[in-house]
Amino acid sequence: AEDVLEPRPGASKHLSSVFQDLDTFPRRHIGPSAKSVEQMLAALDPPVKSLDEFVKQVIPPDVLSSRNLKIRGIQESDQSTSRGVSESQLLKELEEVMSHNHPDVSFIGCGYAGTKVPEVIKRNVFENPAWYTSYTPYQPEISQGRLESLLNYQTMCSDLTGLAIANASVLDEPTAAAEAMTLSMGVLPLSRQKLPNKTYLVSSTCHPQTIAVLQSRAEGFGIKIEVCDILKDDCHRVDELGKDLVGVLVQYPDTEGGVYDYRKLAEKVHKHHALLSVATDLLALTVLTPPGEFGADIAFGNAQRFGVPLGYGGPHAAFFACSDKHKRKIPGRLIGLSKDRLGNPAARLALQTREQHIRREKATSNICTAQALLANMSAFYAIYHGPNGLRDIAHNVIAKTRYIQSAIAEAGFQTGRRGHMNNEPAAFDTFVVESGSKTDAIIAHLRESCLHVRKIDDGHIGITVDETTSEKSASTLINGFRNFGNSSASDKDTSSFEKTHDVEVPAAFKRQSPYLTHPVFNSYHSETELLRYIYHLQSKDLSLVHSMIPLGSCTMKLNATTEMVPVTWSTVSNLHPFLPLDRAQGYAKLIRQLEADLAEITGFHAVSLQPNSGAQGEFTGLRVIRKYHEEKGQKNRDICLIPVSAHGTNPASAAMCGMRVVPIKCDPLTGNLDMEDLKAKCQKHSDELGAIMITYPSTFGVFEPQIKAVCDLIHQHGGQVYMDGANMNAQIGLCSPGEIGADVCHLNLHKTFCIPHGGGGPGVGPIGVAKHLAPFLPGHLRGETGGDKAIAPVSGAPWGSASILPISYAYIKMMGAVGLTQATKVTLLNANYILARLKPHYPIVYTNANGRCAHEFILDARKFKDTAGIEAIDIAKRLQDYGFHAPTMSWPVANTLMIEPTESESKEELDRFCDALISIRKEIAAVERGEQPREGNVLKMAPHSQQDLLRGEWDRPYSREEAAYPLPYLRERKFWPAVTRLDDAYGDTNLFCTCAPVEEE
Amino acid sequence: AEDVLEPRPGASKHLSSVFQDLDTFPRRHIGPSAKSVEQMLAALDPPVKSLDEFVKQVIPPDVLSSRNLKIRGIQESDQSTSRGVSESQLLKELEEVMSHNHPDVSFIGCGYAGTKVPEVIKRNVFENPAWYTSYTPYQPEISQGRLESLLNYQTMCSDLTGLAIANASVLDEPTAAAEAMTLSMGVLPLSRQKLPNKTYLVSSTCHPQTIAVLQSRAEGFGIKIEVCDILKDDCHRVDELGKDLVGVLVQYPDTEGGVYDYRKLAEKVHKHHALLSVATDLLALTVLTPPGEFGADIAFGNAQRFGVPLGYGGPHAAFFACSDKHKRKIPGRLIGLSKDRLGNPAARLALQTREQHIRREKATSNICTAQALLANMSAFYAIYHGPNGLRDIAHNVIAKTRYIQSAIAEAGFQTGRRGHMNNEPAAFDTFVVESGSKTDAIIAHLRESCLHVRKIDDGHIGITVDETTSEKSASTLINGFRNFGNSSASDKDTSSFEKTHDVEVPAAFKRQSPYLTHPVFNSYHSETELLRYIYHLQSKDLSLVHSMIPLGSCTMKLNATTEMVPVTWSTVSNLHPFLPLDRAQGYAKLIRQLEADLAEITGFHAVSLQPNSGAQGEFTGLRVIRKYHEEKGQKNRDICLIPVSAHGTNPASAAMCGMRVVPIKCDPLTGNLDMEDLKAKCQKHSDELGAIMITYPSTFGVFEPQIKAVCDLIHQHGGQVYMDGANMNAQIGLCSPGEIGADVCHLNLHKTFCIPHGGGGPGVGPIGVAKHLAPFLPGHLRGETGGDKAIAPVSGAPWGSASILPISYAYIKMMGAVGLTQATKVTLLNANYILARLKPHYPIVYTNANGRCAHEFILDARKFKDTAGIEAIDIAKRLQDYGFHAPTMSWPVANTLMIEPTESESKEELDRFCDALISIRKEIAAVERGEQPREGNVLKMAPHSQQDLLRGEWDRPYSREEAAYPLPYLRERKFWPAVTRLDDAYGDTNLFCTCAPVEEE
Ligand SMILES: Cc1ncc(COP(=O)(O)O)c(C=O)c1O
Ligand SMILES: Cc1ncc(COP(=O)(O)O)c(C=O)c1O
Ligand SMILES: O=C([O-])O
Repeated sequence: AEDVLEPRPGASKHLSSVFQDLDTFPRRHIGPSAKSVEQMLAALDPPVKSLDEFVKQVIPPDVLSSRNLKIRGIQESDQSTSRGVSESQLLKELEEVMSHNHPDVSFIGCGYAGTKVPEVIKRNVFENPAWYTSYTPYQPEISQGRLESLLNYQTMCSDLTGLAIANASVLDEPTAAAEAMTLSMGVLPLSRQKLPNKTYLVSSTCHPQTIAVLQSRAEGFGIKIEVCDILKDDCHRVDELGKDLVGVLVQYPDTEGGVYDYRKLAEKVHKHHALLSVATDLLALTVLTPPGEFGADIAFGNAQRFGVPLGYGGPHAAFFACSDKHKRKIPGRLIGLSKDRLGNPAARLALQTREQHIRREKATSNICTAQALLANMSAFYAIYHGPNGLRDIAHNVIAKTRYIQSAIAEAGFQTGRRGHMNNEPAAFDTFVVESGSKTDAIIAHLRESCLHVRKIDDGHIGITVDETTSEKSASTLINGFRNFGNSSASDKDTSSFEKTHDVEVPAAFKRQSPYLTHPVFNSYHSETELLRYIYHLQSKDLSLVHSMIPLGSCTMKLNATTEMVPVTWSTVSNLHPFLPLDRAQGYAKLIRQLEADLAEITGFHAVSLQPNSGAQGEFTGLRVIRKYHEEKGQKNRDICLIPVSAHGTNPASAAMCGMRVVPIKCDPLTGNLDMEDLKAKCQKHSDELGAIMITYPSTFGVFEPQIKAVCDLIHQHGGQVYMDGANMNAQIGLCSPGEIGADVCHLNLHKTFCIPHGGGGPGVGPIGVAKHLAPFLPGHLRGETGGDKAIAPVSGAPWGSASILPISYAYIKMMGAVGLTQATKVTLLNANYILARLKPHYPIVYTNANGRCAHEFILDARKFKDTAGIEAIDIAKRLQDYGFHAPTMSWPVANTLMIEPTESESKEELDRFCDALISIRKEIAAVERGEQPREGNVLKMAPHSQQDLLRGEWDRPYSREEAAYPLPYLRERKFWPAVTRLDDAYGDTNLFCTCAPVEEE
Repeated sequence: AEDVLEPRPGASKHLSSVFQDLDTFPRRHIGPSAKSVEQMLAALDPPVKSLDEFVKQVIPPDVLSSRNLKIRGIQESDQSTSRGVSESQLLKELEEVMSHNHPDVSFIGCGYAGTKVPEVIKRNVFENPAWYTSYTPYQPEISQGRLESLLNYQTMCSDLTGLAIANASVLDEPTAAAEAMTLSMGVLPLSRQKLPNKTYLVSSTCHPQTIAVLQSRAEGFGIKIEVCDILKDDCHRVDELGKDLVGVLVQYPDTEGGVYDYRKLAEKVHKHHALLSVATDLLALTVLTPPGEFGADIAFGNAQRFGVPLGYGGPHAAFFACSDKHKRKIPGRLIGLSKDRLGNPAARLALQTREQHIRREKATSNICTAQALLANMSAFYAIYHGPNGLRDIAHNVIAKTRYIQSAIAEAGFQTGRRGHMNNEPAAFDTFVVESGSKTDAIIAHLRESCLHVRKIDDGHIGITVDETTSEKSASTLINGFRNFGNSSASDKDTSSFEKTHDVEVPAAFKRQSPYLTHPVFNSYHSETELLRYIYHLQSKDLSLVHSMIPLGSCTMKLNATTEMVPVTWSTVSNLHPFLPLDRAQGYAKLIRQLEADLAEITGFHAVSLQPNSGAQGEFTGLRVIRKYHEEKGQKNRDICLIPVSAHGTNPASAAMCGMRVVPIKCDPLTGNLDMEDLKAKCQKHSDELGAIMITYPSTFGVFEPQIKAVCDLIHQHGGQVYMDGANMNAQIGLCSPGEIGADVCHLNLHKTFCIPHGGGGPGVGPIGVAKHLAPFLPGHLRGETGGDKAIAPVSGAPWGSASILPISYAYIKMMGAVGLTQATKVTLLNANYILARLKPHYPIVYTNANGRCAHEFILDARKFKDTAGIEAIDIAKRLQDYGFHAPTMSWPVANTLMIEPTESESKEELDRFCDALISIRKEIAAVERGEQPREGNVLKMAPHSQQDLLRGEWDRPYSREEAAYPLPYLRERKFWPAVTRLDDAYGDTNLFCTCAPVEEE
């Protein structure tokens, strides 16, 4: 390993090494130097001689793998090699690979539109580590920047949809549709929820991927999806379904460009006490009457065309808005305005407690990681353009659409929307051409010019225009049609269309209400102003550019620049997800290799990259298991065993798959699974046992010794083993789910494989499966993924969030097998080093028989409640004063802190963090000894903002300097919380989820 | 103009506008909205109805131009158009243009080497506005980040050269050589400085561009440059020259790779009381004995290969180091360590007072803008690699060099260095091949493979290897030679060279001394650690991402992202400056167009882009004038008239051109040139009058009404008019130097044309000239620029800092003629708006007869000295507490502040700034009224750092909150000075210019 980690040219003096690149990556990714590793091993209790010996004390012998990981180079001819490729080589070779992607020109539409990402936003948000490396804003005092930005996003979505409340994004438009469906079900009386023929009525003019994903989501809830022409015969299906109606979904404008009046439909749906959901388009809503004004209860869609690159399908932020009545049922994360200890307004994650952690197996949504970074980009896009600028873009799109439409009509084609091919001008950005028997020929002809349209069916072509549509591509398109047209106009030049084009939408649909009236959308229209606003928000947020973020179960490791660079290459970011596959051969190669590497790492047969979060991976994996049982004629196997220590997404995902969750106890002493309880439950449910969901190493931070026995037991009882791979960072190269005996495992590429957290997303949650499950991996609309037996798609795009896959790919290729394995060893060492330093000061909840933890461990704060009135939250907030983000708080054990340092942190940083916690322990001791009061002490008052400490009077039992600079390093590097501690109770009772009202003026 | 500034699609509804891009740039670049412009016009005193009417009150009628500016599109077929191209179009079209640049593979060397720019530095420094938009650190309290970084740079250069002191960069290696020469002359007794045959002895193995630029610089000082084989005959030329010796320059390793022992030479030079200067290479010095250890007095070179892209020649940071004895004569900027009011260590620009402002026409150096941003990049590169990592890179370069050399030798060629073609292994990265009659054929053959070597002369080829040299390019190179070799080895595969290659340098030259031992070079080797260090430094610096930087004469306008993006394209940044011209056709086009646009804007006939700073432009322009006179047989015309108000670089540049400076008085009341004095001086010096240097609008911020008369007068007396274009931002589109009657003008692209200040550089200082001067514009080594009569080159690369030219190019093309003109109007309006708001509160030094200023004006602080004991510096420092960078202080009038807002600032920002100054005026009034003491008040104690305000005791006559939050906006947006006021006196007497010693440990 030595030379991979510390290349020394000439040290070997062998010719073969003369041209070896020196810019090797593992030594840049792994924090501790070789010398630090030695020092840390010596500081363990008891000390250990070597890293390998240490690993044996952490991982049970029968779990430790004997195989050597193999990671090939980028060139497929490369033999598998233990060394990773260098940073410069990675960029060079990956650039070559991605040069086989051809963005071309797309008129495909279907929910994805070209957009001009303002360069100032691209550089200063999308490419800025201060934005992309931050964590989900669970600690609001050091997250006010992105919380404000997400409030802007919510305000934007709420304003544009005309609905009272909008959340801080869900995954993609189709899963947003699924959330709309389950919310609709959730508001029905329980009796209706249980009806066997309950049906969700879906307009046939929704995007096909929306309908496909709905199918996959409806099944677990026993909902029938009925796709129909919803307005037909005065919406008679609504009436017919009556009590069986779960709700109605329509799209506006619809997938073929139609805009219809849904007022009557809304009334009818409401008559049946059900909800009307509307899939919609934010840009269109700048000119069209918003859904909230025609009776919609829910509106959702994709905010992508607000300045987020296509990225071959994602990530983008889907938005989700609903009426005030349902605000406490809105899925995902919701930012709300509350106030801090000083009464200053401050934003926070609202309604947190309602998350899956509480509802668990009753949850109807498992969304956790969402699309915060992309939501922020979209919000900045709206801020930069302002209401008028957005309307201008909408008008421009309309003008271009109608121009192209009229030219194609003049060329002799009938155009319009489904059932109305009367050449009436498109309402917004999309129209359909009746291409009849020439359909394939036209499409093929246009493809020759690297221009792509949508084949709606054998006789119709769809055309969608966007902000980026240029005169040149428009004329190529028009000329393409002329070649096939019947009219004499076909030899006319496009410039001959001299009539004016009205940009107004039909009067009946014209939006009258104002939107984006808040000053934030009307103040930052020059680049200078926007830049300063971005930096101002940024300055309030703690991220990995400041200090370690020791989030247990979240693996906040380095997001290296070289990994991030390809994301914004145009060969990566500008591809429409439904481009012909042969135009994206670079992606095909990258995906193939990434799947193969992840299969190698997990010890599995096959991998699907479609799920776009960990929770989505869980859902997908369980659906695959259910399909497997079903194929074997065992559809009844619907019991899912889940340890009580599991992450809330596990039971939620199981519930969404229609499984019945049976909890398994854990041993209160060791934290290990209670084997007796497990055996009993297996016995009891032997015939119905579908699966167990288990996290490894456990959520308590320990490699359970009996894991293989667990797998055997489950298999004996006909069940499948689902492994939650959130803790995969502790396994790579040392052991693997496949070898351990699991059948499925999801990975969080946004934890273990370096996709940055983005302040709460994006993520990618691929699943790996054993051979017998591979046939059931998810398919997609055009057969891009999956085979005959595939489950229905789980994401709108075939490869979910394709544009960020290069990050994980780059990580794996640059680390190579040896680097990856070394990283795992160091991640274990870093956690155990902190453990060793803190053990004399704090109780530790669980370790293994050797006194070791895995890659994380739980620090116990419970006893301080008695001794000093101090709780975990006080320690967490006080850590902010020391410049650190708190560890995971009160999960999986209440009133504790779960610490995970990752391999990227240096010994120096670990020491600073330990020093901080030890110093805090002394502050607690002062309270214990009665030297400081139990209330109003420096911990209870934490965190301290500048304004708090600069106030005139000072009557606290500690000094300003003790509050601000408890340790010397803080005088040089101090990160200031922007506000003091948030008032959660106030925020919970006064839910306010749009931009703060302006006080002055 | 309306539609350029606020495009409204559909507003016109004309088909022609359907496909017009909406992402127009002028409205993003110009801060105030149309509405703000109206409000500001109304707020003037007296108010004005329209912008055009207002302009007429500012610019004298005979100066105001009647022509309309014409700026063509990027396509050369485009007709000149008033509209600029959109942001997206700019990037698309410029990418196409630059795709005609082919970086290829270069073995050319000659002072420019390929380097791997670490991605983490590229993204977080080079592409980060927080780094690139900051100003020269004249205000140390809000510049500690880059000051620390520049101290790192100085330490790095000092350590590696083995000399006591190094500065914070000079322009490029050849001008550094010139600085060495003038410093060498400056230390001689005056009697020797005046000797008619004084000679600077230059080794013939210095880089040719170094020798060429020395020629151009020596002339003005009356120094003869003698190029010779310096060690020949025991250095007998040194002895021969005796008292005529100005100094000696050698290169180490030399331009052909030779490394020689200069110990004896040093002794001999010192015997004659002259200085030995050594051009050197930082990477080589990690393994070679440093110049400071063999007797060099000065060492300099190019830090480019430490992580700065080639960029077709620049910008890169040249370093300059000298022995302790000469530290107070070191040219350019020097960062020193001092302490703040609280006694904390803090860095600052040291020895500031010795700049040209003081020495003026006695100055031997005119350097002002340097290469701070690039120096910082190089420092971070050294920090990231550390001493061992750098040595590894050096060893790797040596190994690759010797590998290639031995292969070429085996192919049957003699290799070595000049005079030693004995196949002895290269000492470092360069060797020469005796290619004889095959020279051209080999070069042509290699070019077919897109691989370039250096043609040394008709019989020799030079090969230089670098960090980026790959196995593939090495074998292409070797195989190329084999085709022409005589040996049977020519069909052997390169992999057959199985012998080992020693990476040690010859024992006699092997470096023994340690370097980069300071912790800063040994702590940040993981990407996480480096990233946090970069951000930590950044957090201390105020830049344009925070607030307006109203620097009079420095034009800190928006540096738009779209302008910056092309700089890091590989088609822009990876080109060697001596690549065959046909490989850089993209640059050729861009340069041609940029020259044409600048000529159009200035009203001149031709432009040279070679000078890489404003001061360099001055020098170049004056040299052109002198050459013109000389050609006319009037070499005696050596008088240069310069108003007393001129910037210090003006007299310095004149002196460097061998001109005698005659100052011209200004009217103390109006600030205008004293016409009587001017006439008198013209009369007096009529026969010797060479030029006048004049800034327009004047450095007092006024369009002098008699400017045309001045030009006429000078011309009548046979002189030429040199216009300092620092204030060009007030002219564009409204008037021009050419129309006014000037003959030459330099532009600061880093002021008027959006190249960011980079914390003190880079800059570009092109000159425009009238037709009669065009033949004399600077040439270059291979005739890339200039004609028969060209003056010698002034920069190492033909187009100076070529890689940042796209910034100005993009600005001009995106603004278009209308946008540029509108920007000028708004820049005048913004200044006059501030003037109007502040006039009731502060005296204003100069305005024109209508009470208007130009684009800047001078605020008078002089009377407060009496009334309150307050000086301009106190206001400047107090402004930091309000979140603003101080305006230019005490120049051109002592104890005043010169305010220039630029067009990029919005009315809201201007108002905040005015509010701050008005609030400060109230604070002064409180002192005047005796309510606050004259010492220890909030102004005298400014700025306030966090630590200052959080101290336990508080006995000041103002509260902590009054110090920190004097106005409400500061509670939301507060920028904190990192330290309190610097102690200049301490720093001046205790000059300490490397990293602060580590206290603990
Ligand atoms: C153990 C565990 N399982 C599942 C998840 C859910 O992953 P995601 O947030 O990507 O949906 C998490 C994430 O926080 C987790 O820690
Ligand atoms: C009036 C004036 N002239 C000349 C210069 C010198 O320009 P540079 O710093 O680019 O060398 C300046 C710059 O600050 C200036 O303000
Ligand atoms: O940079 C100046 O010295 O103006």
